[in-house]
Amino acid sequence: MRPSGRTADQMRIITIEPAFTKHAEGSCLISFGDTKVLVTASLEEKVPPFMRGKGEGWVTAEYGMLPRATNTRNNREAAKGKQSGRTQEIQRLIGRSLRSVMDMKLLGERQITLDCDVIQADGGTRTASISGAWVAMRLAVDKLLAEGKLTVDPIRQKVAAISCGIYEGTPVLDLDYIEDSNAHADANFVLIEDGNIAEVQATAEGATYDEEALLRLLRLARIGCADIFAAQAKATGR
Amino acid sequence: MRPSGRTADQMRIITIEPAFTKHAEGSCLISFGDTKVLVTASLEEKVPPFMRGKGEGWVTAEYGMLPRATNTRNNREAAKGKQSGRTQEIQRLIGRSLRSVMDMKLLGERQITLDCDVIQADGGTRTASISGAWVAMRLAVDKLLAEGKLTVDPIRQKVAAISCGIYEGTPVLDLDYIEDSNAHADANFVLIEDGNIAEVQATAEGATYDEEALLRLLRLARIGCADIFAAQAKATGR
Amino acid sequence: MRPSGRTADQMRIITIEPAFTKHAEGSCLISFGDTKVLVTASLEEKVPPFMRGKGEGWVTAEYGMLPRATNTRNNREAAKGKQSGRTQEIQRLIGRSLRSVMDMKLLGERQITLDCDVIQADGGTRTASISGAWVAMRLAVDKLLAEGKLTVDPIRQKVAAISCGIYEGTPVLDLDYIEDSNAHADANFVLIEDGNIAEVQATAEGATYDEEALLRLLRLARIGCADIFAAQAKATGR
Amino acid sequence: MRPSGRTADQMRIITIEPAFTKHAEGSCLISFGDTKVLVTASLEEKVPPFMRGKGEGWVTAEYGMLPRATNTRNNREAAKGKQSGRTQEIQRLIGRSLRSVMDMKLLGERQITLDCDVIQADGGTRTASISGAWVAMRLAVDKLLAEGKLTVDPIRQKVAAISCGIYEGTPVLDLDYIEDSNAHADANFVLIEDGNIAEVQATAEGATYDEEALLRLLRLARIGCADIFAAQAKATGR
Amino acid sequence: MRPSGRTADQMRIITIEPAFTKHAEGSCLISFGDTKVLVTASLEEKVPPFMRGKGEGWVTAEYGMLPRATNTRNNREAAKGKQSGRTQEIQRLIGRSLRSVMDMKLLGERQITLDCDVIQADGGTRTASISGAWVAMRLAVDKLLAEGKLTVDPIRQKVAAISCGIYEGTPVLDLDYIEDSNAHADANFVLIEDGNIAEVQATAEGATYDEEALLRLLRLARIGCADIFAAQAKATGR
Amino acid sequence: MRPSGRTADQMRIITIEPAFTKHAEGSCLISFGDTKVLVTASLEEKVPPFMRGKGEGWVTAEYGMLPRATNTRNNREAAKGKQSGRTQEIQRLIGRSLRSVMDMKLLGERQITLDCDVIQADGGTRTASISGAWVAMRLAVDKLLAEGKLTVDPIRQKVAAISCGIYEGTPVLDLDYIEDSNAHADANFVLIEDGNIAEVQATAEGATYDEEALLRLLRLARIGCADIFAAQAKATGR
Repeated sequence: MRPSGRTADQMRIITIEPAFTKHAEGSCLISFGDTKVLVTASLEEKVPPFMRGKGEGWVTAEYGMLPRATNTRNNREAAKGKQSGRTQEIQRLIGRSLRSVMDMKLLGERQITLDCDVIQADGGTRTASISGAWVAMRLAVDKLLAEGKLTVDPIRQKVAAISCGIYEGTPVLDLDYIEDSNAHADANFVLIEDGNIAEVQATAEGATYDEEALLRLLRLARIGCADIFAAQAKATGR
Repeated sequence: MRPSGRTADQMRIITIEPAFTKHAEGSCLISFGDTKVLVTASLEEKVPPFMRGKGEGWVTAEYGMLPRATNTRNNREAAKGKQSGRTQEIQRLIGRSLRSVMDMKLLGERQITLDCDVIQADGGTRTASISGAWVAMRLAVDKLLAEGKLTVDPIRQKVAAISCGIYEGTPVLDLDYIEDSNAHADANFVLIEDGNIAEVQATAEGATYDEEALLRLLRLARIGCADIFAAQAKATGR
Repeated sequence: MRPSGRTADQMRIITIEPAFTKHAEGSCLISFGDTKVLVTASLEEKVPPFMRGKGEGWVTAEYGMLPRATNTRNNREAAKGKQSGRTQEIQRLIGRSLRSVMDMKLLGERQITLDCDVIQADGGTRTASISGAWVAMRLAVDKLLAEGKLTVDPIRQKVAAISCGIYEGTPVLDLDYIEDSNAHADANFVLIEDGNIAEVQATAEGATYDEEALLRLLRLARIGCADIFAAQAKATGR
Repeated sequence: MRPSGRTADQMRIITIEPAFTKHAEGSCLISFGDTKVLVTASLEEKVPPFMRGKGEGWVTAEYGMLPRATNTRNNREAAKGKQSGRTQEIQRLIGRSLRSVMDMKLLGERQITLDCDVIQADGGTRTASISGAWVAMRLAVDKLLAEGKLTVDPIRQKVAAISCGIYEGTPVLDLDYIEDSNAHADANFVLIEDGNIAEVQATAEGATYDEEALLRLLRLARIGCADIFAAQAKATGR
Repeated sequence: MRPSGRTADQMRIITIEPAFTKHAEGSCLISFGDTKVLVTASLEEKVPPFMRGKGEGWVTAEYGMLPRATNTRNNREAAKGKQSGRTQEIQRLIGRSLRSVMDMKLLGERQITLDCDVIQADGGTRTASISGAWVAMRLAVDKLLAEGKLTVDPIRQKVAAISCGIYEGTPVLDLDYIEDSNAHADANFVLIEDGNIAEVQATAEGATYDEEALLRLLRLARIGCADIFAAQAKATGR
Repeated sequence: MRPSGRTADQMRIITIEPAFTKHAEGSCLISFGDTKVLVTASLEEKVPPFMRGKGEGWVTAEYGMLPRATNTRNNREAAKGKQSGRTQEIQRLIGRSLRSVMDMKLLGERQITLDCDVIQADGGTRTASISGAWVAMRLAVDKLLAEGKLTVDPIRQKVAAISCGIYEGTPVLDLDYIEDSNAHADANFVLIEDGNIAEVQATAEGATYDEEALLRLLRLARIGCADIFAAQAKATGR
């Protein structure tokens, strides 16, 4: 029995509120249950130094958590003067995930920066961030298409992410915070709409796991991502 | 004529959504027009080292702006590795303002940290932060009272803040971003419900101002703060 | 009765020793009683990136306190690896104050950096810094005029600053350290020779204050600044 | 055809030189072909603050690369003043991997720090680090057992790691630098001697991959880790 | 011919103004010609962690240069966020030099921190710092003796320092800035009043030097330090 | 009697393994007894900003110590976020020493960076670094000569360094760690093959020393450097 009463393959309620802020080229507020992430996509008509002159674009991401997004207050990273290893790991993952569905040649020499800021945390903030970042990026690219700055859509497919884990011996989908902090294994899957995989990160916590468990977690992730793809479609009309 | 069409002494619409997040002891989302700030109050049953053993409490504040809260993206302070002078100046001001209405002896050896994070900016983020921080602090203290951890209310009064300035030669109330970036003088007033003043910061930008102008700006601030006190009362039932 | 025996509207002795160091284009050692600040004006024939190509100049300031300028030693900010919020707030104030009397177009694409280093502190270091910075800036500009690099004087007026506060219930002028650390309100006024105001920062400490008190403090500041303007005139022959 | 002429499931030559340095409680120099990592295990009879008083031990890791370990020189992280996101990600992975085979209760309130410093890099530095760290940790624990400070061996099993990837459309084992920088997918597997999995990190680069590819890569990793377990056994007599 | 017209073994005029600031336990303003350094000695009745519980004292030093102490402005180290290698090297040298004449057991568990801040620079700032630091330390210890906190003088002897160098092929004493920046070898000697040596740092710049040159430079340093010892005696009455 | 049983003028065994790593243009592993330093020379066809456009080259050095090179583990400087004063002092010394034998005009607009990383420490790491850096630089320059990128050898002579000190009252050569931490004076000499001196750093620790002692230490250093020059010649065929 899961603390939330959900079945093993049951997602929390997903909501995506597109165009949540007025300044960003694309944005949304995405919720996986009580986990709420504000994502903005900022477009710049230039690329970082290492990409210049190649005629290609770039997609990058940053991640932050408001100090009281969590149950007890965490010190502000800006005040501490550096981002934690966890923050950097997450923002690298978000960036890679979004780049996996973007055709950089079609995007042209532009950069899209995806800022994922966790307003409230209850497990799964990195997967909610990836899933919401696709929406913000999609809206920003739609704006470029609408303005005629792009004529061919550079986004190849949808990408979504979900966490799964082995909780009390059972593989379960979409861990909330209580499950996450007690899981024996914790896996994040980044999946593409066509069924392919962009990233698997499956980590043993306390007890190692076998190949069969890995495959069961992947199967759960496919169930969860189907829901997310539907929510993304609804939010963007794509 | 103001860009927004408002009259010189007209505030933007103020909304305060109390208890906006689930983890914090007190919180609200406050809006002054398109300026939106999420404020959380975090309570700790200990005080910082310099206050220990005095039997008194402490109130402090931190301030941040999401990278794309503004029209063009600002680099994330956590990524730059330090908070700007502006950020530090603002969070010092917020902390002083809230301390001016708190009886530290009655609060006891506890600390309240007010995190003010700007979700969307359109001028007046520091004054919205102060005004919202009072609400978050009020709710956190009400929780202590409800739980019987405090029996006497340590908050003496309401405190609110508003910006005024001289725009196109005319003193106006509650500057939005366009006015703020073109004002000849920019003043922030932190006022107490009984009419007293907690802080005046009145700065010439481009042209200096005379004593009469200072007084007119203060008069406008009184008008604006009356509205904010009403909104605070409505949000907290106090 | 003030600890120093001064009357409520009595300044400490002001001395300004112009051209205190040999390398700087302008400099002075300014004393407000036991508060001693060394100010240098450094001229560069270029402006910071955000000002380039506008045909205008820039004035900026930095502030520091020697570790043992105070009664007990403070750690060196260079050793701590960052400037405190207080330091940044003060240097921003000094810069703004000096810019309020400079015509940037007449100055041309040059930058003047005012370094204010407190040799000995006894209250009022920021106001002594502003008042001395005007002298250093004046001397540096006089050098440009003498060399024919400027033909029209870009400095419009004198600017000076003084602190006032409510000590033991009475508004007093030019707080020394003992008064400053016990004042109920602490106000810094930056005034222009023609009577206009460049900046007011009036902060409640412990007890809030009313409008009448604010006006009395401003009146005291006018008395103090008259003395400073005279000392500035004597030091520069202007 | 692989650039090195190896078959798809062929490892590079693995060598492990145990007790490479004289000061550390355990150490080795591990080579996967031209990739050479010096690993030391440092034992302290205390644990970090968050583990104190639980009667349990801790294992942590740090990772560094000498500036000219690579083909072109990288700036020294100590000189830049911070560790890159990549470095932090790797050292977190190494720590987790080694903790997965350590019984912390049996270890007791001690900390083992594994320093993995890359002397020469040619792909696979993180997997060589994990594989060598097991040897260094094993030797340090054997010392504790020999000295009678421990009577029951707290290390449950061997752990090893290897990278695999899809190079020119073919899944291959143990990527060298040329393959790594051109692979379409890059996976790191951390495996336990009993066949279980401690961690999978499988990342699409350029092209996403399907479930079958993931399983093939895992199969290759099992082949590679068998070789590494043998080398670990030879180096430690365990 | 030296640029200043001095003979090869001629010092600049040395002045030492003792008790230059009111807060420090000991202080002086020392000048070697146009080089002016303000030194304060701060006494604390505790020692740093690595010295605790040994019943011995500690002497340490910090060094800084005001931004416009030099001909062109240097960025403030506090603003850059770190002290340069040069600064750290100098403050380590000053600390070692002063410790060489202090009996730490007699001093007892106290720390003296010597802050050397260069007000104006014209070569030889580190040697002026050492020479002035002895005066400040002497005055602080005299205060302890006068107050009866010490009964036996822990300072064994005088220590002074001077730079010498090979300028235009000739060994010369007490380099000023022009000589220093053109010298072929630059040597700093820290000498004890009894003729012994606390430190030699002799560096080739451009051309290496032979043993005879080293000895000639040492001879010049003895001449210079005799002058400094006399000035120290005059300033302290010791 | 020295702890190692060596005579006063006896060096430890010196070994130099040239071309220790495959990527660097020049490299060696140098050992002075148990002190082992890996040095790489990295060549870049550009110079740092302050040297640009002069038609001259530059030689610089960086120094690091692996965390467990020493008897107890030191925190990693990259993790601490800054290099210690000691590290900076050492790398400045190494750079100066190597520059003293390089003709920058003949080298042309190229930079050689010498990275000295201590694998195992037992006293004398800075002098081993200098001595090994000459070998790595020599090999890198030989490569330039072999490739025809240079036709005239820009390295004028050999440079080597050794530490000497006064241990138990006796001047001894090549201090190991036990001697170094108990020596009354500690001197590092950087000598040129022709007998000239590039640098002397002779520091009193505990007891000051006289001129005769300085000369004896220099004599010992000449004996030690003769050995090192021979080892350098053997390693490079020069």
